[in-house]
Amino acid sequence: MKSKIFKYIEESYQEMIKIRRHLHMYPELSFQEKETAQFIADYQRELGLDVRTEVGGNGVVATLKGKKPGKTVAIRADFDALPIQEENDVPYKSTVDGVMHACGHDAHTAIALGLSKSFSQIKDQLSGTIVFIHQHAEEQDPGGAQAMIADGALEGVDVIFATHMENYLEVDQIWHSYDYILGASDDFKITIEGVGGHGAFPQDTTDVIQIGSQLVNQLHQIVSRKVDPLKSAVLTVGSFHAGHTTNVISNQAILEGTVRSFDDDVRIQMSEWVKQVADYTVKGLGADVTVQYDFGYPATKNDARVNERLVQAAKDVLPEANIHEMKPNMGAEDFAYFTRKIPGVYFFTGSANKNKGLIYPYHHPKFDIDEKALLNGAKVIGSAVIDYLNES
Amino acid sequence: MKSKIFKYIEESYQEMIKIRRHLHMYPELSFQEKETAQFIADYQRELGLDVRTEVGGNGVVATLKGKKPGKTVAIRADFDALPIQEENDVPYKSTVDGVMHACGHDAHTAIALGLSKSFSQIKDQLSGTIVFIHQHAEEQDPGGAQAMIADGALEGVDVIFATHMENYLEVDQIWHSYDYILGASDDFKITIEGVGGHGAFPQDTTDVIQIGSQLVNQLHQIVSRKVDPLKSAVLTVGSFHAGHTTNVISNQAILEGTVRSFDDDVRIQMSEWVKQVADYTVKGLGADVTVQYDFGYPATKNDARVNERLVQAAKDVLPEANIHEMKPNMGAEDFAYFTRKIPGVYFFTGSANKNKGLIYPYHHPKFDIDEKALLNGAKVIGSAVIDYLNES
Amino acid sequence: MKSKIFKYIEESYQEMIKIRRHLHMYPELSFQEKETAQFIADYQRELGLDVRTEVGGNGVVATLKGKKPGKTVAIRADFDALPIQEENDVPYKSTVDGVMHACGHDAHTAIALGLSKSFSQIKDQLSGTIVFIHQHAEEQDPGGAQAMIADGALEGVDVIFATHMENYLEVDQIWHSYDYILGASDDFKITIEGVGGHGAFPQDTTDVIQIGSQLVNQLHQIVSRKVDPLKSAVLTVGSFHAGHTTNVISNQAILEGTVRSFDDDVRIQMSEWVKQVADYTVKGLGADVTVQYDFGYPATKNDARVNERLVQAAKDVLPEANIHEMKPNMGAEDFAYFTRKIPGVYFFTGSANKNKGLIYPYHHPKFDIDEKALLNGAKVIGSAVIDYLNES
Amino acid sequence: MKSKIFKYIEESYQEMIKIRRHLHMYPELSFQEKETAQFIADYQRELGLDVRTEVGGNGVVATLKGKKPGKTVAIRADFDALPIQEENDVPYKSTVDGVMHACGHDAHTAIALGLSKSFSQIKDQLSGTIVFIHQHAEEQDPGGAQAMIADGALEGVDVIFATHMENYLEVDQIWHSYDYILGASDDFKITIEGVGGHGAFPQDTTDVIQIGSQLVNQLHQIVSRKVDPLKSAVLTVGSFHAGHTTNVISNQAILEGTVRSFDDDVRIQMSEWVKQVADYTVKGLGADVTVQYDFGYPATKNDARVNERLVQAAKDVLPEANIHEMKPNMGAEDFAYFTRKIPGVYFFTGSANKNKGLIYPYHHPKFDIDEKALLNGAKVIGSAVIDYLNES
Repeated sequence: MKSKIFKYIEESYQEMIKIRRHLHMYPELSFQEKETAQFIADYQRELGLDVRTEVGGNGVVATLKGKKPGKTVAIRADFDALPIQEENDVPYKSTVDGVMHACGHDAHTAIALGLSKSFSQIKDQLSGTIVFIHQHAEEQDPGGAQAMIADGALEGVDVIFATHMENYLEVDQIWHSYDYILGASDDFKITIEGVGGHGAFPQDTTDVIQIGSQLVNQLHQIVSRKVDPLKSAVLTVGSFHAGHTTNVISNQAILEGTVRSFDDDVRIQMSEWVKQVADYTVKGLGADVTVQYDFGYPATKNDARVNERLVQAAKDVLPEANIHEMKPNMGAEDFAYFTRKIPGVYFFTGSANKNKGLIYPYHHPKFDIDEKALLNGAKVIGSAVIDYLNES
Repeated sequence: MKSKIFKYIEESYQEMIKIRRHLHMYPELSFQEKETAQFIADYQRELGLDVRTEVGGNGVVATLKGKKPGKTVAIRADFDALPIQEENDVPYKSTVDGVMHACGHDAHTAIALGLSKSFSQIKDQLSGTIVFIHQHAEEQDPGGAQAMIADGALEGVDVIFATHMENYLEVDQIWHSYDYILGASDDFKITIEGVGGHGAFPQDTTDVIQIGSQLVNQLHQIVSRKVDPLKSAVLTVGSFHAGHTTNVISNQAILEGTVRSFDDDVRIQMSEWVKQVADYTVKGLGADVTVQYDFGYPATKNDARVNERLVQAAKDVLPEANIHEMKPNMGAEDFAYFTRKIPGVYFFTGSANKNKGLIYPYHHPKFDIDEKALLNGAKVIGSAVIDYLNES
Repeated sequence: MKSKIFKYIEESYQEMIKIRRHLHMYPELSFQEKETAQFIADYQRELGLDVRTEVGGNGVVATLKGKKPGKTVAIRADFDALPIQEENDVPYKSTVDGVMHACGHDAHTAIALGLSKSFSQIKDQLSGTIVFIHQHAEEQDPGGAQAMIADGALEGVDVIFATHMENYLEVDQIWHSYDYILGASDDFKITIEGVGGHGAFPQDTTDVIQIGSQLVNQLHQIVSRKVDPLKSAVLTVGSFHAGHTTNVISNQAILEGTVRSFDDDVRIQMSEWVKQVADYTVKGLGADVTVQYDFGYPATKNDARVNERLVQAAKDVLPEANIHEMKPNMGAEDFAYFTRKIPGVYFFTGSANKNKGLIYPYHHPKFDIDEKALLNGAKVIGSAVIDYLNES
Repeated sequence: MKSKIFKYIEESYQEMIKIRRHLHMYPELSFQEKETAQFIADYQRELGLDVRTEVGGNGVVATLKGKKPGKTVAIRADFDALPIQEENDVPYKSTVDGVMHACGHDAHTAIALGLSKSFSQIKDQLSGTIVFIHQHAEEQDPGGAQAMIADGALEGVDVIFATHMENYLEVDQIWHSYDYILGASDDFKITIEGVGGHGAFPQDTTDVIQIGSQLVNQLHQIVSRKVDPLKSAVLTVGSFHAGHTTNVISNQAILEGTVRSFDDDVRIQMSEWVKQVADYTVKGLGADVTVQYDFGYPATKNDARVNERLVQAAKDVLPEANIHEMKPNMGAEDFAYFTRKIPGVYFFTGSANKNKGLIYPYHHPKFDIDEKALLNGAKVIGSAVIDYLNES
């Protein structure tokens, strides 16, 4: 049965390329992906799937029921694009000014649709159900995942898979993880308001640069002193701006930064310490402070057993040497919300090709992929889905 | 004799106003004061003084020899203007776009010329010599004072007087000091160059915001720990700029600040500690640092005895209650160089008048004075000069 | 065959207790364990093993050759005691004043000897060799492990096992790890020498308390900024002492602390940053500094495959629910040196028994174990050794 | 009249020496000076003065009324000794174990009594009244001055004089000041209570050494940022103690320090900032803090006009070149309370003599004076008193 699905995926390869290029030419920004959703819904309906649209927004859920009873596997693919002006000179270049599929969501969608077509052809032998979760708005907080889940996208689903293009990895390879694969990424903006004045009369002022520096100082001790050393956390103050000249004490300093973590307890702890330290440090020195703390997506944690299944299934697609366990990446994405509900796995499909110059990372105006990644991604997921449904 | 000089000064009052307004209409920037110098030289020559021009640049030195032998007193008046667009709506408004006598140098010059005219009328009774030092370029580093001194402006001079308009003080009052009256003002710019990178991988970077904050922290301990508590020093970091976003570690931070002091030893000490602390703090944390330290004018210190003379002489002009001893002002000016060579006194002549709305401080686009200050300033200096020459 | 070895181990149980209690009564300090070594050598020789004494000091290596060819497995047991006065009131209480087996090395040795006796009885069926590495001086830097390795203790050995009593864990349970199980523990002592003086004249001094505080401040930013967030490191300043009174600036401050880590690169990095930060911070503020940095034992890292074997083997001894994967413990021991040479596993055998009041942690004067741990420890190791030799 | 008083003082010189040596042999600690008070009262009564004892404790006030009407001048002399074991080998060495006149109060009293004897002899010509304020307990907080004032010691007094022996100054010289001559000296003790624990698990603790270091850091920014740069303040943390070993986080850190200042506003400000900064810094990092802030004596400020009188009067005693204006000394004494009530002057009488080895500063076990200082001190005060009474 696995050889059959591999055969159908290979037969879909050209169509996946076509789909991916089509989507690439007509990208839509997060929360505005009307046409893309329509395209997906039409394609899935055409294949005969049961399609639900406007799931939690522009989300589309397409269900493929196998003839035999069994578990339900979901395949998630996101489909929104980014506000970036493409700089590639390719026939399928974005036709929309300032909007670009610079994060490979076009490829993720092509893989899902290719898989849908392939599995449709073995529907009769299939023990269980495959749910295609086409998610809108991954790139922009609060993301589409939460709304789709709230709108029932995971109902009855036992396990979920997703992959992401990765240009730090050559094509024909994958990166996987048994645990956290992506971090939580939260941002803060701290505004310190003091009393400005002449630099020669500090006693009449509250010096926001002095105070801000004390704060940076203390923020950098939270990780050292307040976080379990066996857990990970990073706090970076990425920008510090105050004052316009040498001899005037400004009345405002603005500090902006990011906090990365995996475990929720660390994440919450960090946010509380940032607020507490900011509050006490700034007020203790006589100024006022506002801390705006924006929680982004939480960390994405793979299920160890499901990942072991994926690794085994991947060996049917790629040489074992090309299947790499990775350290978690401190980037973030809202796939995290799915794996907080049910077991799931997220992995990276190598899409770079140095020889062809396909080396630009995602979010770069020259990002482009080796399309062989479509085939690999689809086959690894296909293999894992088959194994999962058969084993269960 | 004092009553005579007071009478002549009062008779010159209208002319001083005229001169001041003329100069106000035709301001010239520092080091470009050709026309003003010419105007002054012509006026003094007309009165019969011995005039030397192009002294150390655009400086003018005019000498009035009394008939009888005696000491030599100098009166210093500066005459350059500022790159400020005047916002006053007065008949004598600046006619030059973006240039304005916003620091009262027009008034200082009018006082000097009024005194020259007045003393010229009692030349025969005068025991000693009066030297009018018309100084260019006070507003802009390195100033005109040093060059004029190098060019002989103080040759044979025993004592020197100068006054400055002061809009923090109502007209008919003066501020004086027996010791330091103005501070030394030095600036620094510290550039920290590190290795930038992603905020989630601080270990691959040298975080210039962290390092800069540590530096601010340490800079603010120099005054507390390294300066004699019986002496004064201020260090202010007036601006701190680094980074553009939350999650990128920048490769450059720029800190700018000012250091104010009185005593030379403190001043030198501060500059050395700033450089040492910057060097060790930044390099110890793995980044590179450049410290640009610009010494401005040194502190202006009055001679206690000469000031006592001035205070006594002022009592012949103003009620004793209007003659105030002041704490030193942390501003700076290059009159300092004169009093480093010979005994001298600098004092502030009140020029504000709240009722008339004349309240804007110098360097403000709406700075203007109560012209009664011309009369007061001239009479106080005149009185002190007479006393000095008679007593010596 | 496994049932046989289990049977022999059970038959040795009482003897293991006897041995353990005997050793407990006659503890010897690190590097002074002459009698204990003699006792061990005699016992092993009695059993017919090939015994080498004075291996790298007081170490004893006893070799049990199976009749059939095969791999060589080592079992390591340490046998030194601690300078602690026992506070237990038991018949087998230490007879030596101020010396006590407060870390369970008596138990470790009893387990090894019990295993030796047990395996001796199945020598004829055994495929391979078992080497008993009786290590002296684990408690005191530089430890006995390195010297024993240098003296050939690991020659021909393929894999090594060791267990440690654990009173944070109830008896009949074990803790294991697939990766790091113990950390590296390094210490530092930083001496700051400045110029003391009167507290009212800081300018004539270098204030070692101010400087030491700055240093603590900066030391606590190394983990936050200089260590890979995916790796672990802890730096703690455990003691800070300077000065004797309110108004005198002392000329010396002493800071002592510890650094814990797992990976060697982090460990080296930490030591270099501590030295660099101390050097620059202290010298930049005008004082002198001496950093004494003492590297203790490195981290102990288990071999993942060997550990998997151990876990499987342990299931033949204990209920699966009692076999726990643990987070690494930041303590350190010199077993680390063995696993740096060959694959090996270290695990913790639960020895607490709350109901019996056996709850005091190691190094406590009331430390004592539930002796059932002897049986469990021996059986888990025995099971793993059998599996290893049979599988290879 | 001045020549007369000088003659009588010279005649009293030997007696002053005798008195001083007698007191030196029988020193009494602060608040225990019963015998000394009796000795003084007896002496003054013998001379015929009106004596009041037990003034505010052990204080003695003796009044000498001149025959003619006039102003009232007070001469203050303190008479308590210190808990120091004398190490001088002199005939008049202290006979009391562990108690010593190591601060010259024996000399101050001898001067006062010598002056009393001298002025008694010209009582008939005297215009006004001289009040001898013999103050107990200067060395120990809260001092005797406040209680004596509360008990009426200054009633009717117009001006007050006092001198202090000074071994940083050779005999035959004096130090005086027109303004502050001594500082205010306040102490603080900050106790930080946290949660201790193992150094490898900082997250479970509140690290009092880290927190204390942050606090020292911030305390040293108060002077730099919160105090008027034209005013003086010093804060020194003289002792910092926490922890006993490298790898245990202690639960307590104790910091002790001193704050010196002149102006009351600065003094109050400093105390408030110390408390606020301690409170916010420590609590912000999760620990508890107690700040014990002990106000000592305030600053002693001379009256400029009375000091000018003293300087002029001193010229009748010593060469002008030996009369030095001094920078304020940051030591403190409770004479401050007298000059807060009425105009007064405190000055230092040189008492060192390098050639004779009389160089040890006060509070040193080898402190001793050149007794010529008795004569000089008495004559300078005598001269000033005469001038004051005659001029008024």
